[in-house]
Amino acid sequence: MATTPHRIVIVGGGFAGLWATRALRNAPVSILLIDRANHHLFQPLLYQVATAGLSAPDIAAPLRHILRRQDNVEVRLAHVQHIEPEARRVVLDDGCDVAYDTLLLASGATHAYFGHDDWAPFAPGLKTLEDALLLRRRLLLAFEHAEAQSDPAAQQAWLSFAIVGGGPTGVELAGTLAEIARHTLKREFRNIDPATARVRLLEAGPRILSAFPESLSRKAHRQLERLGVEVVAGAPVEAIDAQGYRSNGTFVPARTVVWAAGVAASPLARSLGVELDRAGRVRVAPDLSVPGHPDILVAGDLAAVTQADGKPVPGVAPAAKQMGTHVARTIRDRLAGRAPPAFRYRDYGNLATIGRMAAVVDVHGFALSGLFAWWFWLTAHIFFLIGFRNRLAVLLNWAVAYWSYQRAARIIFGRAPRAEARGPSEAG
Amino acid sequence: MATTPHRIVIVGGGFAGLWATRALRNAPVSILLIDRANHHLFQPLLYQVATAGLSAPDIAAPLRHILRRQDNVEVRLAHVQHIEPEARRVVLDDGCDVAYDTLLLASGATHAYFGHDDWAPFAPGLKTLEDALLLRRRLLLAFEHAEAQSDPAAQQAWLSFAIVGGGPTGVELAGTLAEIARHTLKREFRNIDPATARVRLLEAGPRILSAFPESLSRKAHRQLERLGVEVVAGAPVEAIDAQGYRSNGTFVPARTVVWAAGVAASPLARSLGVELDRAGRVRVAPDLSVPGHPDILVAGDLAAVTQADGKPVPGVAPAAKQMGTHVARTIRDRLAGRAPPAFRYRDYGNLATIGRMAAVVDVHGFALSGLFAWWFWLTAHIFFLIGFRNRLAVLLNWAVAYWSYQRAARIIFGRAPRAEARGPSEAG
Repeated sequence: MATTPHRIVIVGGGFAGLWATRALRNAPVSILLIDRANHHLFQPLLYQVATAGLSAPDIAAPLRHILRRQDNVEVRLAHVQHIEPEARRVVLDDGCDVAYDTLLLASGATHAYFGHDDWAPFAPGLKTLEDALLLRRRLLLAFEHAEAQSDPAAQQAWLSFAIVGGGPTGVELAGTLAEIARHTLKREFRNIDPATARVRLLEAGPRILSAFPESLSRKAHRQLERLGVEVVAGAPVEAIDAQGYRSNGTFVPARTVVWAAGVAASPLARSLGVELDRAGRVRVAPDLSVPGHPDILVAGDLAAVTQADGKPVPGVAPAAKQMGTHVARTIRDRLAGRAPPAFRYRDYGNLATIGRMAAVVDVHGFALSGLFAWWFWLTAHIFFLIGFRNRLAVLLNWAVAYWSYQRAARIIFGRAPRAEARGPSEAG
Repeated sequence: MATTPHRIVIVGGGFAGLWATRALRNAPVSILLIDRANHHLFQPLLYQVATAGLSAPDIAAPLRHILRRQDNVEVRLAHVQHIEPEARRVVLDDGCDVAYDTLLLASGATHAYFGHDDWAPFAPGLKTLEDALLLRRRLLLAFEHAEAQSDPAAQQAWLSFAIVGGGPTGVELAGTLAEIARHTLKREFRNIDPATARVRLLEAGPRILSAFPESLSRKAHRQLERLGVEVVAGAPVEAIDAQGYRSNGTFVPARTVVWAAGVAASPLARSLGVELDRAGRVRVAPDLSVPGHPDILVAGDLAAVTQADGKPVPGVAPAAKQMGTHVARTIRDRLAGRAPPAFRYRDYGNLATIGRMAAVVDVHGFALSGLFAWWFWLTAHIFFLIGFRNRLAVLLNWAVAYWSYQRAARIIFGRAPRAEARGPSEAG
């Protein structure tokens, strides 16, 4: 009784960190979970908050509440400044530091502009709730700006939207935005017809949803076009500013550009002083520990893991959860004096939603698309949402949205943009 | 057919402005409704957003959506800078101006610090959705700060809350906050016991809810004390800073102070160049027009109206709705060449909620309190909420909150306060 329990510090309450914490609930350890936000976020539905279908609290639950009955956990709302691996401590930006026996780094990823950080103010990305609310504001304000213009060219520029990146997030955003323009806003404006809005989905590579089989990419492409999205493949973006973007040498006016193209690992990894991959992720050993630092484990989007077949583990929610659970096993095995096994990713398949009643699902070569895939996607997402109340609220919102084409959260926070703040700064 | 319809500009989409707009739906007029926000807000439930019981979109609906089928209305999201009564135009802050035949000024009120504007950063008020989200952040972060402190005095200062003003809003906030501290946060913290938080409700006058009969004030006082609130009457506040407040010569440490004490009319009234009352409201004629400017009408919190019995019309939602409807009647009568009647306020009674299953209701001397009054309050508020979906969502959230003591929207927006930003600035 007198010995201090093994002290574990977990940085990040996303899928990896939270799953690790919960899997250690019966272990003889003392856990400190540190996150910058007070909530766990169900990231797969973040685009619904950005497109006004859900309220922010619908897809988030306070970490303290989720873990209130797990007595070996303390939750701390704080920024981590850096790690000191030699001293075995985590330094917070309020000057405090916390010591660990084992550290789990699960601080995830943020969006990256591949050396073009100057594009950030003109093309916001989507990783946090704050990002989603900012994006919602931008998307809804664009229609308001168009309504207030008298010059047709200026109107059309405000009614032009570009989504950069044809991965699942880009596809979801483009499909939903087209639905908003064509259906949700019907009859609400007097000077513009929102249905004339152009939504372009720009993909640098030859096809969208490149992680899916080619046949599903083609189906998704067609389904998006039916919803009113212009899918432009082979269109790397060369420049972005407040007026639009340039691609393949041509400048296209578009006052609203959204970045869904790239992610980079949390900069915290750099303070470890170990080898990182090109995206800034930590190359971990098969048991997810950091080479040379067995007391540091990395899980989730921050970990670069190569499977036995040479393929990398993808940066998706199921992989993060599996890594979190695996890390907990590693810690328990070590405490019990057993050798922990290597991490093995179980790929249950890939799914992406496109819009109203359209999705693509790929489960080990078993391909689905259209309405049935959409039901599959819906069921899976509702099922995995944390918290009984959230599931009910989300189902309710979706049922109403489905029948009425209305979106429950069409609220612009912050006041109307002031005259002096046209362009990107209005969103601040 | 060739004549231009009578042009009405309505400033403000609150209860007065929106009710006037809707009452003019069949009138041969052309309406421009201007608001700084894109939504109509159900202000009576704003305290629920501030105390994390409801999401912001639950109590707000886009003005465009509400009015989409009313063809004689155009909605504009804009800031009004000033009015030019002689030129009959409204000047927006983007430099545009709009001409009117009749102007309805319904821009409402904001909170006022009675000459102590320096208190504003330390004691935020509650008028807009943004105010509510800021307050939610402050309230939830106070417990996080307390948890992170090791000094007991500092902890206790973070666990001390003061609500300034014993009107309905102050009573609602205090009762709900006590419930959060005693029930909602149970088991979630490791270093503090949230139930030890002190919630003080400060009232300068001799009793809280002074608009109610004295017997109901006493009942509300007792019900609040049962919920854990310390009600301090006869306690005018003399100073507020980041550390606490001073009242009756004594300084009380309290890191979170909320302002629910006073309102002042929108500053727009000043640009009319007419007589205003002490709170900055426009003294209107019996038909709600501005003396000397028959083409300008004022309704809602911005109008100072004296009834036939010499009593002022109170600044409550039903009065604003009645004034809005009356203004529409005045306009229709004038267009038809009839003399409009004087405005007469129909007082249907007064109700205030206190917390879990406690409220007070006063309907013409018929007094209710406790559980039955609470059911009355609940039914009335759900009934008056705009929009079918909002009602369902609010009912769902309340049902879950009722049975579980949980609050659906306990999300802190913005990241953890950085070390350099303790005190009021962290909330920015």
